[in-house]
Amino acid sequence: MPELRRDPITGRWVIINTDRPKGPEKFEVEDHVKKGGTCAFCTGNEKMTPPEIIAYSKVKREKNTPGWTLRVVPNKFPALQIEGALDKTGIGIYDLMNGIGAHEVIIETTSHDKEIADRDDAEVREMLWAYRDRDLDLRKDQRFKYILVFKNYGFSAGASLEHPHSQLIALPFVPKRVWGEMDGAHRYYEYRDRCVYCDMISQEIHEKGLTISENKSFISFCPFVSRFPYEAWVIPKVHAPDFAQIQEALVNDLALILKETMLRIKKVLRDPSYNYIVHSIPLDGFARDDYHWHIEIMPRLTRVAGFEWGTGFYINPTPPELAARTLREVKL
Amino acid sequence: MPELRRDPITGRWVIINTDRPKGPEKFEVEDHVKKGGTCAFCTGNEKMTPPEIIAYSKVKREKNTPGWTLRVVPNKFPALQIEGALDKTGIGIYDLMNGIGAHEVIIETTSHDKEIADRDDAEVREMLWAYRDRDLDLRKDQRFKYILVFKNYGFSAGASLEHPHSQLIALPFVPKRVWGEMDGAHRYYEYRDRCVYCDMISQEIHEKGLTISENKSFISFCPFVSRFPYEAWVIPKVHAPDFAQIQEALVNDLALILKETMLRIKKVLRDPSYNYIVHSIPLDGFARDDYHWHIEIMPRLTRVAGFEWGTGFYINPTPPELAARTLREVKL
Repeated sequence: MPELRRDPITGRWVIINTDRPKGPEKFEVEDHVKKGGTCAFCTGNEKMTPPEIIAYSKVKREKNTPGWTLRVVPNKFPALQIEGALDKTGIGIYDLMNGIGAHEVIIETTSHDKEIADRDDAEVREMLWAYRDRDLDLRKDQRFKYILVFKNYGFSAGASLEHPHSQLIALPFVPKRVWGEMDGAHRYYEYRDRCVYCDMISQEIHEKGLTISENKSFISFCPFVSRFPYEAWVIPKVHAPDFAQIQEALVNDLALILKETMLRIKKVLRDPSYNYIVHSIPLDGFARDDYHWHIEIMPRLTRVAGFEWGTGFYINPTPPELAARTLREVKL
Repeated sequence: MPELRRDPITGRWVIINTDRPKGPEKFEVEDHVKKGGTCAFCTGNEKMTPPEIIAYSKVKREKNTPGWTLRVVPNKFPALQIEGALDKTGIGIYDLMNGIGAHEVIIETTSHDKEIADRDDAEVREMLWAYRDRDLDLRKDQRFKYILVFKNYGFSAGASLEHPHSQLIALPFVPKRVWGEMDGAHRYYEYRDRCVYCDMISQEIHEKGLTISENKSFISFCPFVSRFPYEAWVIPKVHAPDFAQIQEALVNDLALILKETMLRIKKVLRDPSYNYIVHSIPLDGFARDDYHWHIEIMPRLTRVAGFEWGTGFYINPTPPELAARTLREVKL
């Protein structure tokens, strides 16, 4: 019989197929983004992007020229635009806002073909520092209420360019999805006086065999209520609400575990498309001690269909216990 | 500047690209489901499906033999299972339910290749009657609190079989997505003493040029807050909360407008993958006069990416005003 599990944070139900669990060999490898053509993100083509916001470099260089190891540029086709004041209006029965916000692209490395799994630790660290640096800088703009860092890799994950890149969006309001998570974590805390994510770490992950990997500061695991097959979360072991407050030692450990987790996913699922999202707190001035930042990695192996759109909950053909074991045991 | 529009029912924000609107020629036609092999849904192969629940036929026939014009069978790989009592438990910090529910497949026609757009009106009517008949029958089972009717067409919409079919799921609880919609409609009604959907019909659709097609009882239109390019809704003009209470004259008009809308979508978007979902009220005994049933059709032209997963709201590259005009004006 399929099992329905409820996420203790969002209240979302997930149907887990425990009867006929689907192993990694059952998923078709999907097409990746089309190759070929000149890459705007490769060294030498700096003029093809909008002028850079920041760049990391080990050599002295001019802006928008080679010599960088990581670059951040405005998205050429932004979902939101940085200029102007926030303007809210109503038209008939509808509410409207103008599309104020920042939309940046983090070009993670000069290597066109080197995914996180294939990179040096130092390169992964640098990418994480860029996430933090851009977040802290954009916070200074009082218009922004939420900063979202995410990555789309591969065609099915919505990527349109091949060169490794992440994206950052600063929003003038806190999205409903984020409030849902904040509220869920808050309600749990009010009732039990403990963080729901800390409870997951201290008790549930080990007990249920959900661990993928672990180091001094972080654990990566398949959540008990995984929406997607081989969904994996990376979370700091010590409670911390805000990603952008991360300290140096933790960045090092995060780079290690993120790289290892991505490598395990790549091996087991034959280089799947994926999205990952950094989940952190809104910028409304509250400390939110009941929230715990983390990264959610979602391989794109299934297609969202009428059932998911109609109900808002998910059918997951691979029990996370099985997914975690496979990811944990694969030979690297 | 992109425009953010808020759905007055769910409160969901959508980013509409009004600056560089994306016309139908800009979307790639996606691969459909793989062809070939023996089709379990074709006449003569009745034994390949689980035993039928109902079938329509113009001739005398035995169950699970040829002669039918439409068949309803249990899903061979159900997301939920019909047998057993509903059992709710907790494990650690998680809530669980067993996967009780019905999952049926409506084989809409004997014609393997005839999509709704290509069919006789009578065949489309028959499909709608089957939706209603199965809904009314499953309601007798007191365990079920919500019935969802939907259709996945094409690979990107999650279909795995080519032969035209819809699906029906009966759930032992009301999904969060549905409560969100019910609550939104209720709040609007409380405040203005009018149905939000009726307000859309009477005022907004004509004024904003959102109509695709219209007949005596129905209107089809692109909602002002469309999540997806070329999203289209079909809604009865006279207020009615519950799809399954639909009367004969309305079934006839619904068949006509649904067929025409699907034909316009097929022409303009070159036979795209799509999902559609019948939105109706829960089975909790309340009449819900503030809700208004309708069908939401979502062509699958864009891929859901990190931004949507991270925020829970959508980026739509095609303003619905443009989508509606294109669909309305295409030559049939």
